[in-house]
Amino acid sequence: MPNTPAVLRADEGAVAVLTLNRPAARNSLSRVMIAALQETLDGIAADDAIRCLIITAEGPAFSAGHDLKEITAHRADPDGGRGFFAETMQACAAVMQSVVTLPQPVIAAVEGVATAAGCQLAASCDLVVAAEGAKFCTPGVDIGLFCTTPGVALARAVPRKAAMEMLLLGEMIPAAEAHRMGLVNRVVPRGQALEEALALARRVAARSAVALRMGKRGFNQQSALPLAEAYAAAGTVMVENLLAGDAAEGIGAFLGKRTPEWRHR
Amino acid sequence: MPNTPAVLRADEGAVAVLTLNRPAARNSLSRVMIAALQETLDGIAADDAIRCLIITAEGPAFSAGHDLKEITAHRADPDGGRGFFAETMQACAAVMQSVVTLPQPVIAAVEGVATAAGCQLAASCDLVVAAEGAKFCTPGVDIGLFCTTPGVALARAVPRKAAMEMLLLGEMIPAAEAHRMGLVNRVVPRGQALEEALALARRVAARSAVALRMGKRGFNQQSALPLAEAYAAAGTVMVENLLAGDAAEGIGAFLGKRTPEWRHR
Amino acid sequence: MPNTPAVLRADEGAVAVLTLNRPAARNSLSRVMIAALQETLDGIAADDAIRCLIITAEGPAFSAGHDLKEITAHRADPDGGRGFFAETMQACAAVMQSVVTLPQPVIAAVEGVATAAGCQLAASCDLVVAAEGAKFCTPGVDIGLFCTTPGVALARAVPRKAAMEMLLLGEMIPAAEAHRMGLVNRVVPRGQALEEALALARRVAARSAVALRMGKRGFNQQSALPLAEAYAAAGTVMVENLLAGDAAEGIGAFLGKRTPEWRHR
Repeated sequence: MPNTPAVLRADEGAVAVLTLNRPAARNSLSRVMIAALQETLDGIAADDAIRCLIITAEGPAFSAGHDLKEITAHRADPDGGRGFFAETMQACAAVMQSVVTLPQPVIAAVEGVATAAGCQLAASCDLVVAAEGAKFCTPGVDIGLFCTTPGVALARAVPRKAAMEMLLLGEMIPAAEAHRMGLVNRVVPRGQALEEALALARRVAARSAVALRMGKRGFNQQSALPLAEAYAAAGTVMVENLLAGDAAEGIGAFLGKRTPEWRHR
Repeated sequence: MPNTPAVLRADEGAVAVLTLNRPAARNSLSRVMIAALQETLDGIAADDAIRCLIITAEGPAFSAGHDLKEITAHRADPDGGRGFFAETMQACAAVMQSVVTLPQPVIAAVEGVATAAGCQLAASCDLVVAAEGAKFCTPGVDIGLFCTTPGVALARAVPRKAAMEMLLLGEMIPAAEAHRMGLVNRVVPRGQALEEALALARRVAARSAVALRMGKRGFNQQSALPLAEAYAAAGTVMVENLLAGDAAEGIGAFLGKRTPEWRHR
Repeated sequence: MPNTPAVLRADEGAVAVLTLNRPAARNSLSRVMIAALQETLDGIAADDAIRCLIITAEGPAFSAGHDLKEITAHRADPDGGRGFFAETMQACAAVMQSVVTLPQPVIAAVEGVATAAGCQLAASCDLVVAAEGAKFCTPGVDIGLFCTTPGVALARAVPRKAAMEMLLLGEMIPAAEAHRMGLVNRVVPRGQALEEALALARRVAARSAVALRMGKRGFNQQSALPLAEAYAAAGTVMVENLLAGDAAEGIGAFLGKRTPEWRHR
């Protein structure tokens, strides 16, 4: 296992599929896994051929969150683990923010259990497809470690009381309930999460890359601003988007009732 | 058609009904339409006799969003359209913000399809009544023009992943699903959106104009603030509202088990 | 009745139960009630033996909101009531913020009607358990006094249009609909709200007090910040939480497949 990569990347045309590949360790976010995720995300961010990313996982668990054995081992450090813990939190938060700010849209395909930072990873994606057996859980309270960082992603995906319920009770939330809360976009039969995510990703990837990149970045920018500033920022994005070649092509194709031909930049 | 007004206003007592009146153009938000909307909204804002506004539309489409022919025509401008696009985005954003900040509550009555900036207009209203056939859609990705400005209104109406799904996939969202997301308050049978909106508007308009104005403004003010500041601002509004004549009348009527008689200012 | 306490506190192990105890006055938030709530909340905040608080009510109403007779009486004050109104709003907002910032999680158990500031009190709790007969309502518009301060809590619990609908129409929202909106976490049969709240509270209280306190405070802190700052703040909380004894015990117990023994501090 040490010689198998922690994260796999496979491209299907303009869709990249990132697979968490430590099923025996329930895809826990060890430092090796976090580093592999960061490296893969950075590679995709810089890859103009990719227009959509899917994050999925090998094995029955999507991800069990932080690697508790690794954390426990570092309690023996001269500083009691403080340095390692701080670095781990920083590295993990960087990965989550890389998902949010990735130029391309990101879709999670969740079959099994997404726990703690694993739930945070799914919640950080733009869209989540979950299979019927999938479950979402922030059970840190059971081990004396409140899921404070997963709460950052949860608080931005679901209503406040739903987030507090997950964080305070640590219960397994079935896919259907996660859908009701707003954490999941689509629930599909068991075994079909990746297939459905691929179908969505192919549709996304068939669109103008320029529009998708401007659009995702613009959405994140405006949603953090007061209304008037949000409109000012979004308006600027719209003007640039209108002046980009793909909008001229797309609008022209629409008016001419033909299929648009996107430039690849 | 050029001689028919782009926007109709009809008042029924204290309820104003604004109707988008370019059904042949699917009520697209041309500059003429935007200007007519702004003028009508400004007139209503200044009209103390109006206590509630309904925005609805003539024809099968609520609004198809920006006028793509007009946009395309301005690509021939010496600046390639930049000036026109910037002015259009600014004018459109001003209309949307005028809906949000209108002193009176605003109810959208949507029968048909509300697309792109048309969806944004509905999402900007305080309440939305949708008929069963109504659909909501931000399909800019299909024409290389991500619905970034509609996203401003969407991001403030529905959970993040629901907004991203609409923006990334551009699918038609049926009224019932829009209700589940929080974009729609009431779903009624086909043909009854305006009737239901009128019923709600009459109930709103039967209330104290002072309380409604203080209340809507106060809601927008506090919801943009951190909690402690929100309570400070809302508390100030409450004190002024308590000192206004209508609260004395309303509370007195309630304690005396009689119907209140609101002053009209 | 003047000699019975306005608020009762009963502890069951690490769970405190605060009961609004003016059923004949529909538990309205008179200044006496507000002061009793504040005092009880302050006592619980300082009580390290308490790990979870339930707020419930005696009688058919959870709380009818402000005491309108008291408000009306103070219109005879030399300042027309301004000073009293301002003090009341400040005192009430302080109670609501004390619920939000209480070190311990707070669960509302609502059997009857929670109206205006009574709805605000429920909405301010971390979790809400409602019985099937429970209703939530912000009917200030009916008495010329828009529920602006209750709107502060509502706007932070439910989607914008749902909050506006409650505030503009003032309708009674049944428990099931309040659940759909995100205002209620659990709906249980009539008469069982307190029992269910106790069951949840016991589960919460069985967890590490340190983790719960760090977690609730951290959640409130991060959810008010932009994403990057939220992660920085949450990461700091996680490191401190990891270094606290209970996380070492909890993680050790998890890895060792035994039940953790929390320190009580």
